[in-house]
Amino acid sequence: MLHTFDLRVYYEDTDAGGIVYHANYLCFAERARTEFLHKLGLSNHKMLSEDIGIVVSHLEIDYKQPAFLEDKLTVETSVLKMGAATMLLKQDIKRDGILIAGLKVSVAFVCMSAKRPIRIPQELRSKFETYQE
Amino acid sequence: MLHTFDLRVYYEDTDAGGIVYHANYLCFAERARTEFLHKLGLSNHKMLSEDIGIVVSHLEIDYKQPAFLEDKLTVETSVLKMGAATMLLKQDIKRDGILIAGLKVSVAFVCMSAKRPIRIPQELRSKFETYQE
Amino acid sequence: MLHTFDLRVYYEDTDAGGIVYHANYLCFAERARTEFLHKLGLSNHKMLSEDIGIVVSHLEIDYKQPAFLEDKLTVETSVLKMGAATMLLKQDIKRDGILIAGLKVSVAFVCMSAKRPIRIPQELRSKFETYQE
Amino acid sequence: MLHTFDLRVYYEDTDAGGIVYHANYLCFAERARTEFLHKLGLSNHKMLSEDIGIVVSHLEIDYKQPAFLEDKLTVETSVLKMGAATMLLKQDIKRDGILIAGLKVSVAFVCMSAKRPIRIPQELRSKFETYQE
Repeated sequence: MLHTFDLRVYYEDTDAGGIVYHANYLCFAERARTEFLHKLGLSNHKMLSEDIGIVVSHLEIDYKQPAFLEDKLTVETSVLKMGAATMLLKQDIKRDGILIAGLKVSVAFVCMSAKRPIRIPQELRSKFETYQE
Repeated sequence: MLHTFDLRVYYEDTDAGGIVYHANYLCFAERARTEFLHKLGLSNHKMLSEDIGIVVSHLEIDYKQPAFLEDKLTVETSVLKMGAATMLLKQDIKRDGILIAGLKVSVAFVCMSAKRPIRIPQELRSKFETYQE
Repeated sequence: MLHTFDLRVYYEDTDAGGIVYHANYLCFAERARTEFLHKLGLSNHKMLSEDIGIVVSHLEIDYKQPAFLEDKLTVETSVLKMGAATMLLKQDIKRDGILIAGLKVSVAFVCMSAKRPIRIPQELRSKFETYQE
Repeated sequence: MLHTFDLRVYYEDTDAGGIVYHANYLCFAERARTEFLHKLGLSNHKMLSEDIGIVVSHLEIDYKQPAFLEDKLTVETSVLKMGAATMLLKQDIKRDGILIAGLKVSVAFVCMSAKRPIRIPQELRSKFETYQE
């Protein structure tokens, strides 16, 4: 299974080169992860209030094609690997089915105040596994 | 008539104070203006390719309530006044009908290369007028 | 007295119109206010840890000239008015002495958890007053 | 040789987790690359006016430690490898000598209108090579 999230490119996302600013693809991917969480019944806001955060520990992005002002993009998210406190996600950003940027994102569940990793709850793990490739 | 645009607050929109960063409401309002244009059959991208831009010349914003991570916000846009090359827009950003931030935004149609104002085409003007308060 | 803060325009600050994105001048002004605080011996970080924030309650910005990639800009900050819990600041963003954007920013000292205004401490007030026009 | 660039973390760089938003390290690294170019006598603005851009083709980032509001960070940039039209850069973001985030950034010199890679001029190549590890 694949989670998909659609977005439009606005002025704020572009730069003077006339294309989407390279760092903003990471924002697009984060929005998609948040919507993915929501789909699974979770919320960053609620988690933060319980001192839990999902932080990015490593990220790789391959820029394939530029995207432009007002493009409609889709972020496809799937799970590549699950660890005790971590997950490796694959996130492809596409325009009309063409790959614009491909990301591999390692995230860790952490206790925000203690800055320590915490185990992903079993119930949540099962939900993520349905999106595993 | 009122144009409405919905959005969700993501991590990128918030700051260490735990609330939406004050400058980002201007981005929300700009997204709404872009969607408003699209609704009227226009596109910034197409306009830029014809050397036309809609630039903000003056802006006023009143911050009423903080907004938080993952809030669902609505931007309501209407036209307060129309000039030959300019428009004054009212944009209210709300959460569940409660005003979060109220903007008054003056925009001007300009020739981007010459940096000069240009007259709003009559056909477009008629469309905007249906959203005039 | 006037507080001045210099910055350079980077790709992230610009948009596909080839100029600085209008919302980013608010970020420039905020950076200047933070440096102004530091000059007076304060820090947002320390204040937040004491549950105090300086939040923007109202803002007005007049866009005079576009700014471009790699421009060197200066933000000049002075105090227009002081209230018990609020201040009205004037912030001019210039390039080579030419006004690019002029802001009037109302800020309030607030207790972040209670979301209530708090009185500006007398010692701090005296320091701000030396920058009053 | 190593190019170093200092910056301060402002509110705009942080998120509701109380730390620097993960995508913003890419902005910090881009600022450093721009200042590096300036040091070598180049400018993105001038290059764009000649239809040349330096675009990121691949990027990897390892997040080691969170950074906080008002931290002073340093970006250290060096050249790992040079190709005909591409360069691989190493960029370490540090606070007081401690690694916060480590990046490997592949950039390509491209003709912006044709979206094609172009050869790095020999004079420029020689300058970059003095920063090669």
